[in-house]
Amino acid sequence: MTTEKIDGVAVTTQANVYFDGKCVSHSITLADGTKKSVGVILPATLTFNTGAAEIMECVAGACEYKLAGSSEWVKSGAGQKFNVPANSSFEIRVAEAYHYVCHFG
Amino acid sequence: MTTEKIDGVAVTTQANVYFDGKCVSHSITLADGTKKSVGVILPATLTFNTGAAEIMECVAGACEYKLAGSSEWVKSGAGQKFNVPANSSFEIRVAEAYHYVCHFG
Repeated sequence: MTTEKIDGVAVTTQANVYFDGKCVSHSITLADGTKKSVGVILPATLTFNTGAAEIMECVAGACEYKLAGSSEWVKSGAGQKFNVPANSSFEIRVAEAYHYVCHFG
Repeated sequence: MTTEKIDGVAVTTQANVYFDGKCVSHSITLADGTKKSVGVILPATLTFNTGAAEIMECVAGACEYKLAGSSEWVKSGAGQKFNVPANSSFEIRVAEAYHYVCHFG
């Protein structure tokens, strides 16, 4: 089951644009102060570095990802999640579009 | 003054991707049911068609726009808005990035 909507949030109107627009997200803050972002990655192969740990939840489309220290590409589609440790990185490759919610911590 | 955050909204997690990602937005619904979107247009010259009338509010960056029937390009920067009639169109050209809130109706 995918998260189609997130209620009761404050949305930051200015987008986060990474990699010349291959990744675009908007930051949201929940009523309890929790910060997340909703975004999309367009066709590309990209490497992201994490500060805080992240849970990447796919809400539409799909990707393949490879965590730092792994040699295995793993597919993640709608309704699936993967965890990225803090102060780490992951590669992601997207063939069509990967729509996600990024949960921190 | 720009609108930096919009509180108390439901955000649709799947992005709207137009023109191969040159325009990416997320739809939001306010507590009273009003629908808006927050988005960004990356460097490009694009033509958008409207169904409902729209007010385009720039929250960061800038664009130039030209309404249907006009021959004049007009600049719109942070804190500025422009109105587009229903069932019409406008051209927009962006040199860096144009972050916006789209208000409908």
